[in-house]
Amino acid sequence: MTSMQQVNPRVLGIREPSKLQSLAACVTQEIRQGANKPFKKVIDVSSCDPHRAGMDPVSFVRQVLAVCLYPELLEDKSLPLDVRQRAQTLLGACEGRSVGSYSTTSCGLPLVQKSVAEFITSRDVGVKSRLEDIILCGGSQKAVSMVLHLMASREGRTQTGVLTPAPCPHTLPALLEMCGVKQVLYHLMEDQGWAVDLNEMQRALKAARGHCEPRAIYISNPGNPTGHVQDRETMEELIRFVAAEGLVLLAEEVYQDSVFGHDKEFLSYKKVLFDMGKELSETVELVSFHSLSSPCIGECGLRGGYMEIINMEPEVTKHLKRMLGPYTPPVLPQLALQLMVNPPTPGELSYQTYLQEILHIKTTLSQNAQRAHEFLNALPGMTCQPAMAGVFLFPCLHLPTEMIEEAKMLGVKADVLYCQRLLEEEGVCLGAGCENGQEDQNYHIRLCVLAPPDTLDQVLARLRSFHLRLLSRFP
Amino acid sequence: MTSMQQVNPRVLGIREPSKLQSLAACVTQEIRQGANKPFKKVIDVSSCDPHRAGMDPVSFVRQVLAVCLYPELLEDKSLPLDVRQRAQTLLGACEGRSVGSYSTTSCGLPLVQKSVAEFITSRDVGVKSRLEDIILCGGSQKAVSMVLHLMASREGRTQTGVLTPAPCPHTLPALLEMCGVKQVLYHLMEDQGWAVDLNEMQRALKAARGHCEPRAIYISNPGNPTGHVQDRETMEELIRFVAAEGLVLLAEEVYQDSVFGHDKEFLSYKKVLFDMGKELSETVELVSFHSLSSPCIGECGLRGGYMEIINMEPEVTKHLKRMLGPYTPPVLPQLALQLMVNPPTPGELSYQTYLQEILHIKTTLSQNAQRAHEFLNALPGMTCQPAMAGVFLFPCLHLPTEMIEEAKMLGVKADVLYCQRLLEEEGVCLGAGCENGQEDQNYHIRLCVLAPPDTLDQVLARLRSFHLRLLSRFP
Repeated sequence: MTSMQQVNPRVLGIREPSKLQSLAACVTQEIRQGANKPFKKVIDVSSCDPHRAGMDPVSFVRQVLAVCLYPELLEDKSLPLDVRQRAQTLLGACEGRSVGSYSTTSCGLPLVQKSVAEFITSRDVGVKSRLEDIILCGGSQKAVSMVLHLMASREGRTQTGVLTPAPCPHTLPALLEMCGVKQVLYHLMEDQGWAVDLNEMQRALKAARGHCEPRAIYISNPGNPTGHVQDRETMEELIRFVAAEGLVLLAEEVYQDSVFGHDKEFLSYKKVLFDMGKELSETVELVSFHSLSSPCIGECGLRGGYMEIINMEPEVTKHLKRMLGPYTPPVLPQLALQLMVNPPTPGELSYQTYLQEILHIKTTLSQNAQRAHEFLNALPGMTCQPAMAGVFLFPCLHLPTEMIEEAKMLGVKADVLYCQRLLEEEGVCLGAGCENGQEDQNYHIRLCVLAPPDTLDQVLARLRSFHLRLLSRFP
Repeated sequence: MTSMQQVNPRVLGIREPSKLQSLAACVTQEIRQGANKPFKKVIDVSSCDPHRAGMDPVSFVRQVLAVCLYPELLEDKSLPLDVRQRAQTLLGACEGRSVGSYSTTSCGLPLVQKSVAEFITSRDVGVKSRLEDIILCGGSQKAVSMVLHLMASREGRTQTGVLTPAPCPHTLPALLEMCGVKQVLYHLMEDQGWAVDLNEMQRALKAARGHCEPRAIYISNPGNPTGHVQDRETMEELIRFVAAEGLVLLAEEVYQDSVFGHDKEFLSYKKVLFDMGKELSETVELVSFHSLSSPCIGECGLRGGYMEIINMEPEVTKHLKRMLGPYTPPVLPQLALQLMVNPPTPGELSYQTYLQEILHIKTTLSQNAQRAHEFLNALPGMTCQPAMAGVFLFPCLHLPTEMIEEAKMLGVKADVLYCQRLLEEEGVCLGAGCENGQEDQNYHIRLCVLAPPDTLDQVLARLRSFHLRLLSRFP
């Protein structure tokens, strides 16, 4: 019989990713069963899930995928010609012209690998990307976990460690635990808009050695959940650091399509690395990750993503591909990825609609971020760094001492308690900062601002009611 | 820098799942580049991938999924009403009515869990299935690997071991290695149509103890790649054995929808277990697996599946669900699963078409299996057990001693050499028996017979040419 004593010790440490989401599900269930609440519906903005929030999907993506699934629609004249042509092309890339066949190789469909490589080459002007460096898989988290699994090794003082930011994406800690990798936190500088600080990085690395064997640095740029966009200078510093310390650079760049801060632009780590000259660009090991869950496309439920692998020893890359062997990636998300990196171009029938839809999403996002930032900063006991990209705000809570004491007595973290009460009293589900590995003398909350403006307004209004009531309870 | 010395020792042992498929890709590439070959196209029947082979997908499944992806089609009167109604229902089960949203929980959409539980309840007459025992995920292999990952523990003589049949599904060995689980083989009885033999199972278990800690038995029924269908008596024997030895029963039942042998019927392990009385049905730990890749639906590329968990300690099940946390399953394959377990019913508009399509697939499969079996048995130096279910034949090769010697000299297994030559000379890609863990004094090949009849005819004709030529080389 299997008991908890027999469970793999490597996975024993895994905790519930968020008890708040389970609580949100309970409250929703209570409402359905007729419970009397001061709200009709729970709004969950703890994670980024644009379509759930009510944002519309991009029509071109959905149209092409629908035709690929049901090729009889190739004859349907009510669908734009370029939609049907694209579906033809994509079907031609599938074995037996069917999305129901397995992917040819564990790295994905060559046509899609090629499109991704072309997209990267065109994005990183002057830096070529090669099809054989692209691995497609069921989402960027899946990709990250494959690389972690490859590097994970040993236990105790020689266990593989990975430096990760605090705050980090809230799904990352569980991923690291699953792979048996030790998380080593480096703190981002909140008062500098959550910038990376090299001294802090060095401190973290030094402190980690002796406790584990740090092998890689995980960077989220544009930052999840910080909304920070790194500048070239910082990135160069980091690359030199990584090179000097012989670490692997894991660059999660899922929010690359949603930079809206004034004068800010996305630079990929690959581009910056290659601009630094051959000595570095031919040696620094870099794996970058991108995903269909990126804000503009927002196809989270399809679960697709890719990684690009640079300067890894060929034998090691080969082994990584071998590890993927038993799990060829699902086909449909690969096709969606092809549409994401290769959207309609000027002159094509769907171009105008596509452009308008993307523009609408981007405008909504940037206006929401701006509005929410001002709103939150105007609340007493809350300070919020402006977001320059991505979908989250990560404001700091200055909680009354009494509430912190109360949380201690209840054996729960104060940010979690704050979110629980907000959820129970106002039906808004936020993320607690501790889920992002952010635990210091202050507390934080996480909210996704990619939602229809009236949804955001409701979230903010309910949050304010709760927050002011809370403060008035502890005058 | 990461070198092979630094790769996770737990994954170091993973080998290429099949070099033959890579070789097949090379040959295909050569043909594209104009190489002169005695064949125009490689036919790969080494694995089951019905749509690649040219079988048509089930229209109802594709129509509903297309509407779910592009809900504007809800208004398309050219699609049957029940298709659009079903799509409405499924969209209602998705967050924000979009397949682009994450699954609500790591176990999948409750509506789909419920449909699966109802399907099992109705299949296993009198044995109730509960929604909360159903976990949906990205394919049955993914499900198996989660359970293995949960159980995997330690190294050396205390490493977790799993008893698996020889021959076993050809994807299983790599899966076990990935999870750090030791494979312990029990041999199936070829001369009894690949039946399980309890004495052999006992021998394998006894021999394994001391080398590892056997914790579970993996059973494939109907058998992949054997086509064997277990009878109630054997299953009862096995259940008693599992109970006496305190093992977990992992029942892969992916081919449950494709039993065609005379007087044969599929019985689930759950049904048999529950018919044996409370003492066993309340204690034996059973996890059963099913998948969208099952022959009739054959949606391999979508990658969806479920597992049902019986009698696992609640804490352990909870932990398994926790492990799934970071990877909520993709939504579309869940919807496809709902369609698979809940097809159109009499009176619904799509019923007749659905019925005809499924009947066509089943008839093709059973006639192909019968024809191929007779054909192969008629070849000199080949004996083939009849398949009673599933999609594979697994004939035994009686190779000339000279060829076996030649293979030894070339440092390759004789069954692999046979398949390589067949591929190079005739453009047919079969599986080598050693990929299924089948290595004894005889050699085996694996071929999938689920393909349009004329494709199968070509495969058989080319195989005969090659085989006879080979035998004539070594008279």
